[in-house]
Amino acid sequence: MSAPDKSPAFDSIVVAAGTTCADAIAEAGLPTTGPRAIVVVRDEQGGLRDLSWAPEAPAEVEPVPMDSPDGLNVLRHSCAHVLAQAVQDLYPQARLGIGPPIRDGFYYDFDVETPFQPEDLKKLEKRMQEIVKSGQRFSRRDYESRDEARRELADEPYKLLLVDVKGDVEDPEVMEVGGGGLTVYDNVDGKTGERVWGDLCRGPHLPSTRMIPAFKLMRSAAAYWMGSEKNPQLQRIYGTAWPSRDAQKEYLHLLEEAAKRDHRKLGAQLDLFSFPEVLGSGLPVFHPKGAIVRHIMESYLRERQAEAGYQVVNTPHLTKGALFETSGHLPYYADSMFPPMQMEGADYYVKSMNCPMHNLIFASRGRSYRELPLRLSEFGTVYRYEKSGVVHGLTRVRGMTQDDAHIYCTKEQMTGEIKELLAFVLRLLRDYGLDDFYLELSTRDDSPKFMGDEAQWEEATAALREAAEESGLELIPDPGGAAFYGPKISVQAKDAIGRSWQMSTIQLDFNQPARFGLEYSADDGTRRQPVMIHRALFGSIERFFGVLTEHYAGAFPAWLAPVQAVGIPIRDENVPYLTDFFAQLTDHGIRGEVDVSDDRMQKKVRNAQLQKIPFMVLAGDTDQADQTVSFRYRDGSQRNGVPVGEAVRHVVDVVRSRTNVGPSAA
Amino acid sequence: MSAPDKSPAFDSIVVAAGTTCADAIAEAGLPTTGPRAIVVVRDEQGGLRDLSWAPEAPAEVEPVPMDSPDGLNVLRHSCAHVLAQAVQDLYPQARLGIGPPIRDGFYYDFDVETPFQPEDLKKLEKRMQEIVKSGQRFSRRDYESRDEARRELADEPYKLLLVDVKGDVEDPEVMEVGGGGLTVYDNVDGKTGERVWGDLCRGPHLPSTRMIPAFKLMRSAAAYWMGSEKNPQLQRIYGTAWPSRDAQKEYLHLLEEAAKRDHRKLGAQLDLFSFPEVLGSGLPVFHPKGAIVRHIMESYLRERQAEAGYQVVNTPHLTKGALFETSGHLPYYADSMFPPMQMEGADYYVKSMNCPMHNLIFASRGRSYRELPLRLSEFGTVYRYEKSGVVHGLTRVRGMTQDDAHIYCTKEQMTGEIKELLAFVLRLLRDYGLDDFYLELSTRDDSPKFMGDEAQWEEATAALREAAEESGLELIPDPGGAAFYGPKISVQAKDAIGRSWQMSTIQLDFNQPARFGLEYSADDGTRRQPVMIHRALFGSIERFFGVLTEHYAGAFPAWLAPVQAVGIPIRDENVPYLTDFFAQLTDHGIRGEVDVSDDRMQKKVRNAQLQKIPFMVLAGDTDQADQTVSFRYRDGSQRNGVPVGEAVRHVVDVVRSRTNVGPSAA
Repeated sequence: MSAPDKSPAFDSIVVAAGTTCADAIAEAGLPTTGPRAIVVVRDEQGGLRDLSWAPEAPAEVEPVPMDSPDGLNVLRHSCAHVLAQAVQDLYPQARLGIGPPIRDGFYYDFDVETPFQPEDLKKLEKRMQEIVKSGQRFSRRDYESRDEARRELADEPYKLLLVDVKGDVEDPEVMEVGGGGLTVYDNVDGKTGERVWGDLCRGPHLPSTRMIPAFKLMRSAAAYWMGSEKNPQLQRIYGTAWPSRDAQKEYLHLLEEAAKRDHRKLGAQLDLFSFPEVLGSGLPVFHPKGAIVRHIMESYLRERQAEAGYQVVNTPHLTKGALFETSGHLPYYADSMFPPMQMEGADYYVKSMNCPMHNLIFASRGRSYRELPLRLSEFGTVYRYEKSGVVHGLTRVRGMTQDDAHIYCTKEQMTGEIKELLAFVLRLLRDYGLDDFYLELSTRDDSPKFMGDEAQWEEATAALREAAEESGLELIPDPGGAAFYGPKISVQAKDAIGRSWQMSTIQLDFNQPARFGLEYSADDGTRRQPVMIHRALFGSIERFFGVLTEHYAGAFPAWLAPVQAVGIPIRDENVPYLTDFFAQLTDHGIRGEVDVSDDRMQKKVRNAQLQKIPFMVLAGDTDQADQTVSFRYRDGSQRNGVPVGEAVRHVVDVVRSRTNVGPSAA
Repeated sequence: MSAPDKSPAFDSIVVAAGTTCADAIAEAGLPTTGPRAIVVVRDEQGGLRDLSWAPEAPAEVEPVPMDSPDGLNVLRHSCAHVLAQAVQDLYPQARLGIGPPIRDGFYYDFDVETPFQPEDLKKLEKRMQEIVKSGQRFSRRDYESRDEARRELADEPYKLLLVDVKGDVEDPEVMEVGGGGLTVYDNVDGKTGERVWGDLCRGPHLPSTRMIPAFKLMRSAAAYWMGSEKNPQLQRIYGTAWPSRDAQKEYLHLLEEAAKRDHRKLGAQLDLFSFPEVLGSGLPVFHPKGAIVRHIMESYLRERQAEAGYQVVNTPHLTKGALFETSGHLPYYADSMFPPMQMEGADYYVKSMNCPMHNLIFASRGRSYRELPLRLSEFGTVYRYEKSGVVHGLTRVRGMTQDDAHIYCTKEQMTGEIKELLAFVLRLLRDYGLDDFYLELSTRDDSPKFMGDEAQWEEATAALREAAEESGLELIPDPGGAAFYGPKISVQAKDAIGRSWQMSTIQLDFNQPARFGLEYSADDGTRRQPVMIHRALFGSIERFFGVLTEHYAGAFPAWLAPVQAVGIPIRDENVPYLTDFFAQLTDHGIRGEVDVSDDRMQKKVRNAQLQKIPFMVLAGDTDQADQTVSFRYRDGSQRNGVPVGEAVRHVVDVVRSRTNVGPSAA
């Protein structure tokens, strides 16, 4: 979900023999404070080094600022050390596990008698602030031998285990140990030079705790040593740290916003969908209100696709495995499919892909060049195996309805078709309210999983790149990220709070047409193989639904809202008048009705706000006498005494415009 | 597919001791010729007896006419004997297998050196006609002992096997042997009284071959002795026989019509759908033109349902088995489901039913009586295991999209809801062009498969009966045909050639609400259990599509036709003019375009006829000069010089009216 890193790198500098990098950085006038402060350097072998490192021979190094991905890891790793020191200060019996940086922060595991409580975190945060302020230096020291390490770490049973497994740990999050000798980072009092704490660690670290601009402890949770249930349970404390207070504030605000917009929470609150445990993980059901939104999403796309020359097809959710052997999905991708059903001597699979079935339709009769490009589309529900741990609401599911399309065209049509497609896709995403994009171009690397000959890959990649560049959007390379049958462009869209989501993908494929023996008669009478373009606009309806729910925080624009308007009578006597008004709205296809419950008027307004209904239509005696109604919008603003005819037009216009509604739209 | 038998039975007569039934029938003045001729009688024990039978004591018997189900079997079984005699006359080396009556006819199996060819069937038919005309009597004779039978049948190895297995044969089609002693039917020359042929047989038979009014040999095919691949292969000849020449003519015409309308053939010809073998049996794919028809079928129903207060939901195609254990489908109905997928220690099933998932949606939050009736609908694709042998085109599939709905209501609402539902269903079937119906009421019997207490079954059955009777349609009882959870009404519709198809079903269910613990708060604040009504209107989209294709012989009414209009220019110079006209049609949502292929005009007309396109729109120079177009309809009729505006309105009107198009509709 994170956008590409955009902080520019610094030019390399040469550090003279015997000079510390810190001195060289200062001399070069590079920043030593603020978000861009240099925190470590990258040596000629690509390794990260402390600023206290003084090369024995002149060395060219790359200064690494705190706000770069590597710099952030160093900052957060140092913060983890400060946390561990604070814990052992306050809870001397606590034994240390490991404490790596992670996305947006860090954690540290501790063996303690009782789990940490929120008030413990407060105390720890206070102690950490003291350590940060005291300006302790991180000082690297090599152990002479494994035995020396064992002697010094005699009281730390988990560290002793690490000493033993040194070099065998493959978990990339574990930075404590690794290649090279065993090292310890001592925390040294900035004034007295006295060692106050230390940790077995490969580093590197910030020069001083004082360089930590902003951090916060987030929560604690139980975690097994080395992630295995067979091992003892430890207590993990999660924290976050940032190169500036503003960056941290922004991050915390984003978290808060994201929590408010969590589509799982909104899905329950707005009665849109649920995830019944009895069905299994990642298999959502859509309640009536959610199914309406789904249907509108699909209908609108269906209309636009019909205009753009797409034809709809319909294929089953099951097939014998032979189909996926032909396509090449089996046996290589069996792990990401649901397991087979054995029947009548054959393995049947729930489909994980629609494309092979579309190929069968292409091949069901002779095809002429006159029919190309042939654009076959389907809202095809596929099922894929995802580990239960990564399944998340609607955005990572096991059952997903792809708005799938496969375009069969000639090689000559390929580049033009992709350009048109990309324009089509962006136009549609804008219609759904997303308008901040960048592109990713996923290409092959040397992995043996990529099928087909290199020249074709190059041709396909060139076609995609040309289309991508012509769009004028930023283009991020993603080598090795292609599908096994061809390269792809993916459209990344930013939502209302700046998070990036992978949306549409456009993939080129020379391989499946060959594997399925697809051909058409060309205008010269020869039989030729079409190029195949795979395309999903939403990715999946489920995922897009989840993203839109978060983007709009559940306050869908009127055209997508499950209930578009609700009538709220001031007194019971106004019900018939308002009912007549709603009959007019219904005639125009507007979804909504008068709230005739026993609730009081204020409660009805509150319910409508909770349901995030775009138009509250109120009417009292004055409105009734004047043949008007009053609007109240989701933001609390109001528009009173609107003549009935104008009011109907207003609702219909806002719905048709597919804009979001509010006082400005009114 | 056959309608219920409607020929009235005859009253019983008493046959005096020593009198033959034939004499008693003649004396009673009952018919001895024509379709209603009495061919056998039913004795007091319910057994069928030859007319030559003379009871030893006075007996009350029921005369059985030829046009009754039993009478037809006797006719056809006698015909099988005539066939066997003819075969042994012309191919004396042929050895006899068995020769039972079957639906609409009979067959007989023979052990012969070479398979029968069509010209052999012609010769045999001629010889059979001679035997029929010669008026041989069927004369019953008891074997004294099994040894006597063995001696007489020494040359008939398969009959010898039957003598040995006498009484053990369970195949209901095998009428040759059965309870009681071994009998033979001799064919006796009507004039000389000489035995000319005979067959081991339990009977009964017609009195004489001359009573056979009409028969025809249809085809021959290989068949294993007793249906087992381990046995020798025999040659089977199929024939048909009827109580009148008119009845046979009608049947043959129906076969011819049915063959012309075969939706599998039309599906390929009209490029609607196909059945790729690689997917597996019973898993159709819908090509663009078929998917359009599907979509229109669904959209129209969706609109009507929205008006009738239905809400749409959407549920996955997979679930852990636990859900179907709760519903009671597992383990009892595992045989009709696809086998499980084992994953993460659980059995996952592809759903065979949508109802349990709709129950989860009902139960996803508290429900109030104010929300009832709650009508949840879904185009839910389910998968069921059918033996490959019975899978047939779209009408018997393994993957089917049910236009499923579940209505949750109070007990008080139940009867009213069913009446409304039945009216809704019939109105909709009429919209799709079916208008000849009868109802079947399926109830429980003593089988242990039926769940729930008897009083509830009775209440539910009474509600269905009341609604059915109020509809004024004929009501056929079907005891034991209910679903395991409740009784049902099914609507049987007759198609254009008089075949009956089971369409909509309405099932009542008290059991699932109990098993899922469904409840609502009643107006008195108590928590009560809703009644559940299961309803499918089409049965399945696939099956309904197949039925409609045969009903219309592929010539769909314009609103359902995949291509509604095609433009045929008389000369190339008329293309732009016609293209402008089609742009107007497209603006009105009409599907169609101008045929700009290189074909000649006559070929374009022929293509449009083959594609069964409702409107051919022709334009030549005169039309162009006069701003008119000319219509040509599927039946060959034409309407020339229609002004453009009127022509557009004509097409739009016919489409909107949902009528079929032709000169009368024009």
